[in-house]
Amino acid sequence: MDVVHAEDTRTRLLNTALRLFTEHGVEGTSLQMIADALGVTKAAVYYHFKTKAEITESVAEPVLLELEGIVDDARAQRTRGAQIDHLLDGFVDLVVRHRSLVALFSSDPGIARAIEKSVHSSASFKNRLLEILVGPDPDLTAIVTAQVLLAGIAVAGGSPEVASLDDETLRETLLTVGRKLYNRPRRRAT
Amino acid sequence: MDVVHAEDTRTRLLNTALRLFTEHGVEGTSLQMIADALGVTKAAVYYHFKTKAEITESVAEPVLLELEGIVDDARAQRTRGAQIDHLLDGFVDLVVRHRSLVALFSSDPGIARAIEKSVHSSASFKNRLLEILVGPDPDLTAIVTAQVLLAGIAVAGGSPEVASLDDETLRETLLTVGRKLYNRPRRRAT
Repeated sequence: MDVVHAEDTRTRLLNTALRLFTEHGVEGTSLQMIADALGVTKAAVYYHFKTKAEITESVAEPVLLELEGIVDDARAQRTRGAQIDHLLDGFVDLVVRHRSLVALFSSDPGIARAIEKSVHSSASFKNRLLEILVGPDPDLTAIVTAQVLLAGIAVAGGSPEVASLDDETLRETLLTVGRKLYNRPRRRAT
Repeated sequence: MDVVHAEDTRTRLLNTALRLFTEHGVEGTSLQMIADALGVTKAAVYYHFKTKAEITESVAEPVLLELEGIVDDARAQRTRGAQIDHLLDGFVDLVVRHRSLVALFSSDPGIARAIEKSVHSSASFKNRLLEILVGPDPDLTAIVTAQVLLAGIAVAGGSPEVASLDDETLRETLLTVGRKLYNRPRRRAT
């Protein structure tokens, strides 16, 4: 198997796995089902991934890497207001662009566990993300507000009720709600 | 098996099932595991429930019935503000008192599907609940705000980060966040 072909198969495999995860849940999807949907043998799947957990991690990884980039960029902003704006904009945009994956993240314990174990979801990364939202000296309300924001936007953004909205409309609406929770002006300054 | 004994077993069975669902997920819990944990035969479990779906529905049912009562009481309030206050108070209180069950509701596709199929989660019930939050002539922002509120409070209320808080503290904090999304005064008028 040459390298280019192997890369193609890996990408196709991850796309197929994501589709089957969305339809049947992670627990309800077997390596055999992934092989069948791709029209390859189970051995061909094993060539790329030894376990289903490796597949869920690989499906989630690019989105988690993107989120890390957003958090780093947000921390580099000079004012706390600008940090929150940057994180809100980036997080909402990420949720909107990866709606089906985010819906899976927030509803499936299999993929949620895979994310928990991922390096990108280490305690230090979570703390860096939350620090931006809660500020340097957080009270309990600030901590719970951050959790309502992140969970609410992720779940609402991936819900079937908004599936018919185009990305731009959903993005603007989620941002309006998020900015309200954080007393931010409705439009981004940049 | 006399009726009183059968009632006791049913209650124990549902409590045990909820505990196993919380530990292993719905998909990861078998009828055999429930029987083993109770120290009874699988036939004894079958006497009460023919399928795991019947168990998940029975676990969820009392909470859904309670939510129906809250929605009906909220609709009976005379002003829109009082309706929203009543629903916020009742929903937050329900989430706090049933934290582990709500965490399961909002994270497990098995139990989420069971709730979807339940009569208490019919389209008309969902519409009645949402109508209170979005008002008679809702725009898109109102609809998405309601989803962020419900999902955010349910997920944040069941999250491990707040598990150490006592009910009263968690209730007050979730209410503060919810009231902010709806521009409601911080304290209930009653």
